[in-house]
Amino acid sequence: MHAVDLIRKKRDGEELSAEEIRYLANGAAHGSIPKEQLAAWLMAAFLRGLSLAEVDALTTAMRFSGETFDPSPLGKFAVDKHSTGGVGDKTSLLVAPIAAAAGLVVPMISGRALGHTGGTLDKLESIPGYRTQLSLSEMEQVLAKAGASIVGQTQALVPADRVLYALRDCTSTVESPFLICASIMSKKLAAGLNGLVLDVKTGSGAFLHNKTDALFLAALMVETGERAGTRTAALLTNMDQPLGRFAGNWVEVWESLEVMEGNRHPLSEDLRELSLILAGWMIYLGGLVPSAEEGRHRAEEVLRSGAALQAFTSMVQAHGGDMAALAHPEQFHQPKARKDFLADRSGYLAYMDCTAVGWAVQRLGAGRERAGEPVAPHAGMEMHAKLGSQVKAGEPILTMFLNDPARFAEPEVLLRKAIVIADVPGEHPPLVQEIITAENRKKFLQAPKRP
Amino acid sequence: MHAVDLIRKKRDGEELSAEEIRYLANGAAHGSIPKEQLAAWLMAAFLRGLSLAEVDALTTAMRFSGETFDPSPLGKFAVDKHSTGGVGDKTSLLVAPIAAAAGLVVPMISGRALGHTGGTLDKLESIPGYRTQLSLSEMEQVLAKAGASIVGQTQALVPADRVLYALRDCTSTVESPFLICASIMSKKLAAGLNGLVLDVKTGSGAFLHNKTDALFLAALMVETGERAGTRTAALLTNMDQPLGRFAGNWVEVWESLEVMEGNRHPLSEDLRELSLILAGWMIYLGGLVPSAEEGRHRAEEVLRSGAALQAFTSMVQAHGGDMAALAHPEQFHQPKARKDFLADRSGYLAYMDCTAVGWAVQRLGAGRERAGEPVAPHAGMEMHAKLGSQVKAGEPILTMFLNDPARFAEPEVLLRKAIVIADVPGEHPPLVQEIITAENRKKFLQAPKRP
Repeated sequence: MHAVDLIRKKRDGEELSAEEIRYLANGAAHGSIPKEQLAAWLMAAFLRGLSLAEVDALTTAMRFSGETFDPSPLGKFAVDKHSTGGVGDKTSLLVAPIAAAAGLVVPMISGRALGHTGGTLDKLESIPGYRTQLSLSEMEQVLAKAGASIVGQTQALVPADRVLYALRDCTSTVESPFLICASIMSKKLAAGLNGLVLDVKTGSGAFLHNKTDALFLAALMVETGERAGTRTAALLTNMDQPLGRFAGNWVEVWESLEVMEGNRHPLSEDLRELSLILAGWMIYLGGLVPSAEEGRHRAEEVLRSGAALQAFTSMVQAHGGDMAALAHPEQFHQPKARKDFLADRSGYLAYMDCTAVGWAVQRLGAGRERAGEPVAPHAGMEMHAKLGSQVKAGEPILTMFLNDPARFAEPEVLLRKAIVIADVPGEHPPLVQEIITAENRKKFLQAPKRP
Repeated sequence: MHAVDLIRKKRDGEELSAEEIRYLANGAAHGSIPKEQLAAWLMAAFLRGLSLAEVDALTTAMRFSGETFDPSPLGKFAVDKHSTGGVGDKTSLLVAPIAAAAGLVVPMISGRALGHTGGTLDKLESIPGYRTQLSLSEMEQVLAKAGASIVGQTQALVPADRVLYALRDCTSTVESPFLICASIMSKKLAAGLNGLVLDVKTGSGAFLHNKTDALFLAALMVETGERAGTRTAALLTNMDQPLGRFAGNWVEVWESLEVMEGNRHPLSEDLRELSLILAGWMIYLGGLVPSAEEGRHRAEEVLRSGAALQAFTSMVQAHGGDMAALAHPEQFHQPKARKDFLADRSGYLAYMDCTAVGWAVQRLGAGRERAGEPVAPHAGMEMHAKLGSQVKAGEPILTMFLNDPARFAEPEVLLRKAIVIADVPGEHPPLVQEIITAENRKKFLQAPKRP
């Protein structure tokens, strides 16, 4: 088999066999196919698209390109939740302990801040001592103890994706639903999941702004999960504004603790609701209840009972995290500087470019400019208003936190452009816009036409 | 400027500016853009196509990516002929001395055997002592003496093409008319030509089998040449069978000498005719005669007068070639083994897969399996019949020559499959099928739709 022939085949719009796809994925993982050939294939795949069988084959080949996790010794249904990335999206910190407290195991392999979106690992590492780099056998021990373990990808896990992902980044082949699906699903399925809930974001703060594209990606991932024997559901959810009250690193852990402690705050209600719905789906896929609706009730029960908080605490402890920080999260929040961002007129918070808001959070220090740099654990922002709410000229819409007061300028410019105050509140879509399941996925599986 | 943005732009079907194209070409030449990014851009360009302005910009940027030749000190119109590659296509060996003898200078930068097609440099190097690697100032001296100089590309000439060509080869992005045009024209125009005649092959032995594709490529090259201020014409010519009587290396030099010496052979008539037509266009573009028709007559005059032979001899001598070989070309032809390829039935030579015939010539030893290998100067074949002629069972259609009798097997299998003898002679297109000039080029400039 020759890479040059497989590139030609995809270039001409033909379908590659599973064996051919495996040859490419293994060539990426082992470095036996030069990067320029992989790059040409990626561009051909980007422009020609992949068939469902090709996406399945690529996902499977990448999934098994390195070591994999086997949760079966734990004797429980293994489930995970994955988000395509958002701003202030801390649902992982909530759904993992909720599902664990409900009786499932959650081996969650997470990522870092990417583009304008936050990273679960960066958030957890704001807890002093929390180790995200566990071996798979250490993860198994944490799961046996706490029911949930949120870790980073190891070097040996899904090496084909690491190579292809880095290549896609520098060759403008990121935004392909087919390649996104294979990348996400290979990493998730490498954890040996029995069930998976996908939170596919849409709206101004999502990577896929367009609802049609997001729906197709969601259906593609459900299809690919089901083909691999993993019960899979996807929720298309709104990301027109940050989720919850805070966006950053430690501030998001803090907000999650507040929700788990039962301290309701009006600006955290959307976060709480979405977490309960997602956890409800995890519990339902796990077979513990007869419907996702009843899953949501079960999720609320374990949240109210304190069992979710206990699972979270237990997970953090097993990962080496500092318990003192968790005990007094508000006191632990110590940014060097704070600055309010004020409404420049009175009216309604009608629209925001949530991607730009996400970039502002990153530029405040919550994210990094170059891979490998440290992030500022206490940088971020607190929202004081939600879309549709009334604001008054001169009053704060949000508060920014950072370590270096000289760095307020860029985020402020971004925010001023991003946030629109108008005379009318505007119309805002519901939090959950569509649910794609094994049953209804077929009707969303028509690939959108590329211009 | 970032390569990743230029890749995205082309991926999305947008047009790049001349400055952006120059950034890519220089990045290729200087190694400042990684190969994976160039490969992704090449695939995007392959699938999305390039505009006329982009092809012009790419050609110009590649042309000036290294050193260039300036023929103006020679004080004559500088003209060249380029063929897209064929089997037995030795017209360069004839048109260069004819045009030189007519009063033009021909700085011809040629290539080696590629795929199933022969290489002018490999043919000339079958003359003992002939040096194809001259510096540009050595080439200028040869031109001052002989009027024609056929040399190989130097390392410093068009380095962007060397990098991009090697990348195209391994990424299945060779057969793009846009990229082919930029590659050919950048190399040709780097010789500072005032005029250029293109022999674009079509038919079973051409790289572009399809006439529509060949026509588009021809028009694209005429357009690009004219935009660069070089008078350019293209002839679409038939390559359904080897041109002339011989295909190989020394045998092609020999056949050319026979034509220049005025020894007419029925199987060399197509070669003689095409060479006169091409040289006629060179002479016409050079302004020596008022029409291409009259150019053909002038070409025939210098051929008949022996002036072309003299220019050829003078060129070979100036390149260090052995005059003794030229004096007795038939005696100099000393392959270790010969074998006739016999007709397996009586009938008409109705069709041949001329690409397969070309591969047979290469496999006999006229070409190489790996870049840098030496070729066998006396390997090749002599045709005994042309398409449409009658053949008898058991009589030779052609004779093969090679150095190692053990290597007849593969070429014989190729030929048996390639050559079709039928009850009827079949229909065969004329040698010259279309002429594309500055005047009529527009009507062929519609890019063929890609499936």
